[in-house]
Amino acid sequence: MNFKKTLWAGAALALLPGLAFAQEVAEEAAVAAPSFDEIGPYIMTTLLFLIGGFLVMWMAAGFAMLEAGLVRSKNVTTQLTKNIALFSIAGIMYWLVGFNLMYPGDGWIIAGWVGGFFNITSLEPVGLDAASATLDYASVASDFFFQLMFCATTASIVSGTLAERIKLWPFLIFVVVLTGFIYPIEASWQWGGGWLSEMGFYDFAGSTLVHAAGGFAALAGAIVLGSRIGKYKDGRVIPMPGSNLALATLGTFILWLGWFGFNGGSQLAAGTVGDITDVGRIFANTNMAASAGAVAALILTQVMYKKPDLTMVLNGALAGLVSITAGPLDPSLFGALLIGAVGGVIVVVVVPLLDKLKIDDVVGAIPVHLAAGFWGTMVVPFNSADTSFVTQFIGFAAIGIFTFVVSLVVWLILKATMGIRVSEEAEINGLDVSELGMEAYPEFAKG
Amino acid sequence: MNFKKTLWAGAALALLPGLAFAQEVAEEAAVAAPSFDEIGPYIMTTLLFLIGGFLVMWMAAGFAMLEAGLVRSKNVTTQLTKNIALFSIAGIMYWLVGFNLMYPGDGWIIAGWVGGFFNITSLEPVGLDAASATLDYASVASDFFFQLMFCATTASIVSGTLAERIKLWPFLIFVVVLTGFIYPIEASWQWGGGWLSEMGFYDFAGSTLVHAAGGFAALAGAIVLGSRIGKYKDGRVIPMPGSNLALATLGTFILWLGWFGFNGGSQLAAGTVGDITDVGRIFANTNMAASAGAVAALILTQVMYKKPDLTMVLNGALAGLVSITAGPLDPSLFGALLIGAVGGVIVVVVVPLLDKLKIDDVVGAIPVHLAAGFWGTMVVPFNSADTSFVTQFIGFAAIGIFTFVVSLVVWLILKATMGIRVSEEAEINGLDVSELGMEAYPEFAKG
Amino acid sequence: MNFKKTLWAGAALALLPGLAFAQEVAEEAAVAAPSFDEIGPYIMTTLLFLIGGFLVMWMAAGFAMLEAGLVRSKNVTTQLTKNIALFSIAGIMYWLVGFNLMYPGDGWIIAGWVGGFFNITSLEPVGLDAASATLDYASVASDFFFQLMFCATTASIVSGTLAERIKLWPFLIFVVVLTGFIYPIEASWQWGGGWLSEMGFYDFAGSTLVHAAGGFAALAGAIVLGSRIGKYKDGRVIPMPGSNLALATLGTFILWLGWFGFNGGSQLAAGTVGDITDVGRIFANTNMAASAGAVAALILTQVMYKKPDLTMVLNGALAGLVSITAGPLDPSLFGALLIGAVGGVIVVVVVPLLDKLKIDDVVGAIPVHLAAGFWGTMVVPFNSADTSFVTQFIGFAAIGIFTFVVSLVVWLILKATMGIRVSEEAEINGLDVSELGMEAYPEFAKG
Repeated sequence: MNFKKTLWAGAALALLPGLAFAQEVAEEAAVAAPSFDEIGPYIMTTLLFLIGGFLVMWMAAGFAMLEAGLVRSKNVTTQLTKNIALFSIAGIMYWLVGFNLMYPGDGWIIAGWVGGFFNITSLEPVGLDAASATLDYASVASDFFFQLMFCATTASIVSGTLAERIKLWPFLIFVVVLTGFIYPIEASWQWGGGWLSEMGFYDFAGSTLVHAAGGFAALAGAIVLGSRIGKYKDGRVIPMPGSNLALATLGTFILWLGWFGFNGGSQLAAGTVGDITDVGRIFANTNMAASAGAVAALILTQVMYKKPDLTMVLNGALAGLVSITAGPLDPSLFGALLIGAVGGVIVVVVVPLLDKLKIDDVVGAIPVHLAAGFWGTMVVPFNSADTSFVTQFIGFAAIGIFTFVVSLVVWLILKATMGIRVSEEAEINGLDVSELGMEAYPEFAKG
Repeated sequence: MNFKKTLWAGAALALLPGLAFAQEVAEEAAVAAPSFDEIGPYIMTTLLFLIGGFLVMWMAAGFAMLEAGLVRSKNVTTQLTKNIALFSIAGIMYWLVGFNLMYPGDGWIIAGWVGGFFNITSLEPVGLDAASATLDYASVASDFFFQLMFCATTASIVSGTLAERIKLWPFLIFVVVLTGFIYPIEASWQWGGGWLSEMGFYDFAGSTLVHAAGGFAALAGAIVLGSRIGKYKDGRVIPMPGSNLALATLGTFILWLGWFGFNGGSQLAAGTVGDITDVGRIFANTNMAASAGAVAALILTQVMYKKPDLTMVLNGALAGLVSITAGPLDPSLFGALLIGAVGGVIVVVVVPLLDKLKIDDVVGAIPVHLAAGFWGTMVVPFNSADTSFVTQFIGFAAIGIFTFVVSLVVWLILKATMGIRVSEEAEINGLDVSELGMEAYPEFAKG
Repeated sequence: MNFKKTLWAGAALALLPGLAFAQEVAEEAAVAAPSFDEIGPYIMTTLLFLIGGFLVMWMAAGFAMLEAGLVRSKNVTTQLTKNIALFSIAGIMYWLVGFNLMYPGDGWIIAGWVGGFFNITSLEPVGLDAASATLDYASVASDFFFQLMFCATTASIVSGTLAERIKLWPFLIFVVVLTGFIYPIEASWQWGGGWLSEMGFYDFAGSTLVHAAGGFAALAGAIVLGSRIGKYKDGRVIPMPGSNLALATLGTFILWLGWFGFNGGSQLAAGTVGDITDVGRIFANTNMAASAGAVAALILTQVMYKKPDLTMVLNGALAGLVSITAGPLDPSLFGALLIGAVGGVIVVVVVPLLDKLKIDDVVGAIPVHLAAGFWGTMVVPFNSADTSFVTQFIGFAAIGIFTFVVSLVVWLILKATMGIRVSEEAEINGLDVSELGMEAYPEFAKG
C-alpha cells in the first residue's frame, strides 16, 4: 500500500452534520452530471477496494479452515469459534476506534490522535454527488471496508499459534485490543502518514504492518501461554498432527486466492493505464511467489526428510505470499520467484528452530508471518530504490518491538487477572468439550 | 433492489426475430463507436451484475456446506444432492417461466401475466451494438444471471429446514414450483413493478422477498412433514448435533462473502459516483450487521447457557445479514450494528421457541431467514422516509401469507399423492443408505 | 477464446532493456494524461483478465477438493499434495517457457519458436504509460496471469484420473512437461495464431485445448499406469467409493464458480457494449449448461439405477460446463441447456464404458473432460457459422493425437526410468503412509 491520502478523513467528518444537505445537492447535481472521463478513475478505484476487500474478507475463512485442519479434532469447534468471533470483533472495533486512530487526519500530532480516538467512522451520505467526492481517490466506505479486512487479518494470524490451550474469552479480549488499538496505531505510522512513512519505510501491502505484527502478537502470546502439555518431552518434540489436512489445504487455497485482493488492492488505484497494469503485475508476482514458496518447501522437505511434507508445502506457499507482500510491484517475475522461494525455505528452517526454543506455534504462524515477513521487508531495497536496508530494518524493528511489548503486557495482564490458559484436564479432554460443550465431529470415532 | 426497469423485456422479445440484422448493425456501428462516456455506466452496471451474480451463486455452495455440516452424517449425501439439484433446477425453471413471470413488462395486468408466462427468457444478440442497448441500465443477460441467483437462494433456504426426513423427489418437485412460480410471482409484486412497489414497500435486497419467503415455504413444509423421529420426547427436546462443524463454519463464511454480491449488486447501478459509493456503503453495512449478529449471539449464549454456542454464532451472523438485507443502504454503520445485533438476538430466542412449538427446523433456517427477515423489513422506516411501518407490515404479511398458503397447498398435494416423508426405517438408518445407497463418509467409523 | 493478438509479445521484449527509460516516460506522460474515453476499454479488459484469472485460479482448489473427496481416505494427503504442487509448478513452467512458447509472436515459424522458447516472460514496466500500452487489448501481466490459469487447469485434470497408485515425483515431472511444453504447443496452434486458428477451428474457452487435452494426457497415463489393485476382478467392477462427498460437492461448486471466469474471461474484451454484453451471455449460458448437465445426470441415474447418484450429478454438472466451453457465446439459453444436458448424459454413459475397457479413472476426469470436451467441440457448428464439423473434428483430432502420443511417450519414459507406480504394498496401505508418512485424517477411525 502506498502512502495513503488522509484528506478525506477530515472531509468525511465535515460532511457529518450536513448529511441532509449533501443529499439535496446530489439531486440537483444530477442535472449536470460529470462526464465519465472525470469520474471513471474514482469508480474504478472504488471497485478495486470492493473486490479487493471481499477477497481479503475471504481470507478469514482461509485462516479458519487452515487452523481447523491443523489442530486436533478435540479442539476444532473452539478454533472455529475463535475465528468467526475474531473477524466479527475486528469489524466492530475497527469502526469504533481503529480506522480513525489509524488515519488521524493531516496533523499527525497529539491533537490528531485525540481527534481520531474519539470519533467513530462514518460513511459518506447516500447518493454522494460527484462534486463532494474525492475524485482522485475512492469512496470512504470502500476504503474503510478494504482497510478493515487488513486489521482482521492481523488478528487471524494470532489465533493459530495459540490454539489448543488458550481460553476463549481472554483471547477475544486480546483481539479487542489488537484490532482496536495495537494494529491501528502501528499501521498509522506508515499508512496513516506517520513517522515511518515520512522516513521512507516501504511496506506495500503489509509484510511488516500486518503479517509480522500479527506474528509478534502471536509470539508474545505463545511465550506467556507456554507450550501444550506433552509437546516437548525429554528434549524431544512430540508431533501432534492436524486432524484434517483437506481443510488445511482448502484454507491455503483460500488464502492464496484472497491474497490477490490483499496485494492487488493495495495499489490503491485502478483508474489509469499505469495503475491497472500495476495491479496486473502484482497479481502475477503474487502468484509466482506463492508457487515458488510451495515448490521450495516441497523440494527441501524431500531432500531433508526424504519425504515431502504437505503441511510444509502449504506453509511454504503462504510464506511465499507473505514474502512478496512488502513489495509485490517492483520485482520481475524472476525476482518474485526468488523472493517466494526463500520464503518457503525460511519456513522449513524456522519451524524446527522454534521447537528448539520450545515456543509452541500450533500452525506455524510465526515462521510464516513473522520470519517470512522480515525477509519480505528486508528484500525490498533490492528491487526498489525508494528505501534502504537501514530504513527497512528500523521500520520492522519499531513495529516489531511496539507490537511485541504491548502484546506482552496485555497477555500478562490477562494472565494475571482472568487467566489465559485452560486447566490441564480441559486441555487433555479437548477445549471443545470442556469450554464449549460441542464437538466438531461428534460422530467420527477416534482412531 | 430498487424498482426495476422492465422496458427491456419487450425490447428483448422484439429483437428475437431480428437477431441476424442486429449483428449486421453491430458491425456497421463499429465505425462510429460511442464514446466511453456514454457507455461507461452500462458497462459498470453490467459488471456489477456479473460480479454480484457470481458471488450470490457462491451462496449455493454456502448453503450446501452449512446444511451438510449441520445434519447427521447418515444424511449428508442426501443433503448435498438436494442442494446441487435445487440450484440446477432453479437455473432451468427461472429461465423457462420465472424471469418473464417476475418482470411481465410495462402493463402489470392479466395480459402481462399471460405474456410473461408463455415466453421463455431470451438474451440479447451476440455483439449487441450500443444503439440497441439500454444504456441507462445493463445487459439483459447479466440481469437475468443476477436475478436467477436470488431465485435459487430462496430454494436453498427451504432445504435445510426439511432435512433428514424428506424424500428427495417430492422436495425437488416443490423446488420446481417455488423457483418457477411462487418466488417469481411474489417477487414481481415488488421488483417486477407490481402493487407492492406501487404502494411504496421497501425491500432493498430481499429480507422479505427472498429470505422470509424462503422461510415461509420452509415453515409450511416443516408443518406438513412433521418433526424427526425422537426429536421431541416426553416434553424434552433431544439435541441432534451436526456432524461437521467445520463445514458449517465454512458455509457461513461463504454466505457472508456471497452476501456482498447479494446486497451490493442490488444497488442495480454502478456507473455514477453516487451509485458506486452506495455500493461501498452497502458492503460496509452488510459486514457490520453480520459482525454484530455474530457477537450478539456469542455474548447471549455465554450469558444464557454459560458457554458460547458455535452454531448460534454462525446463525447469528446469518441473521445479522438477513436483517440488514431489507435496507443495507440507508443506515449508518452504528445503525447497521444495531440492526444486525438484534438479528443475532432473535435467532437465539426463536430457535428454542420453535422447538416449543415442535416445529423441527434442522438448521435454524426459519429463525434466521423468516424471523430476522421480519425484523429487517420492519426496521426499514427508522432509516428511510420512503416507507412506513404499515406499508412494511402489509408487504411482509402479503408475501408471507401468499408464500405460506401456496406452499402449504403444494406440500399437502405432494403428501397426498406421492408422499413426502421417508419410511421410519429409512429415517433411522439414514437417508443416504436408504434413498441413495451412497454414504458421504463411508470410511469414518461411527463414534 | 478468440484469436489472440500477439503483437505485444515483441513489444514486451523490446521494452526489457529500456525499463528505466519507460518509467521516465511514464512520469512525463502524466502531464497530459489520456482521457478515460481512450483508456477505458484497456482498463476494463485488464480487469476482466484479473477477475477471470482469480476465478480460474480458484478452480485449482476445486479440483483439489473434488479429488480429495473422491479418493479413499488413505490417499487424501497425497492427492492434496499433488494438487497444490502441480498448480505451483504450472506457475513456474508457464513463465519459464510456456507463455512465450504459446504466443511465439507474429511469425509463427521455426524462428518464432526458437525465439519463444528461449525467452522467459517479462511483464510491462511499473507504472506503464498509456502511450506504451496496447490500448486495444489489455496489460501483458493480466493476460499472462489469466492464460497461466488455463495451463494449470490442464494439469489439474490429469491428477484425478491417476490417483491412488501413482508415485508423486514422476507425476510432478509429467506436470513439468505438460505445463511447460505440451499444453503451450498445442494451445499455440489455436490461441497463439497457429495453423488451427488459420484453418478456422473454433474453441472459445478450451473444450479441446484445455479439457480434452487434459483428458488425453490423463488417458495416456491411465493406460501406462494400469488400474488400481482389485478394481477389476473376475469381470466385475469393484466400487471404491470416495471418502468425503462433502468435499467432492464443495469442489464441484468451486469449479462451477470458477468457470464463469474461465468462459467469461475468454471473451478477451470488456470495454464495449458488445463485449460486456457477450460476457453476460456467456455467464448465463455457462450456468445453464451446468444446471442441465446436473439435472440430466440426476434423472438418468434415477431411471437407470433407480437411485440418483451424487457423484454422477457432480460430474454431470462438470460435463455440462466442459460441453459449453467450446462455444459459450453463440447458443441461446435453450441451446446451452441442450448442450449441457447431453454432456450430463455422456458422463453417465461413458463412466461404465471406461470401466469395461478396464481404464481406471478414479474421479471420472476422462468422461467429463475428454468425452464431453469432444461433444462440446463438435456441436459448435450448430450455433456458429464460423466453422464446420470437419474443421472441428480435425482440430480435436490433431490436439488429441498430439497430446495423447507425446504424453504416452513421456509416461513410458518415466515408467522405464524411475517407475511411475508405487509398490503393491504401498498401494494397499495407502500412499499417504507409504509415500508421505502423513495421514489426512489421522484421528478418524476406519469404519
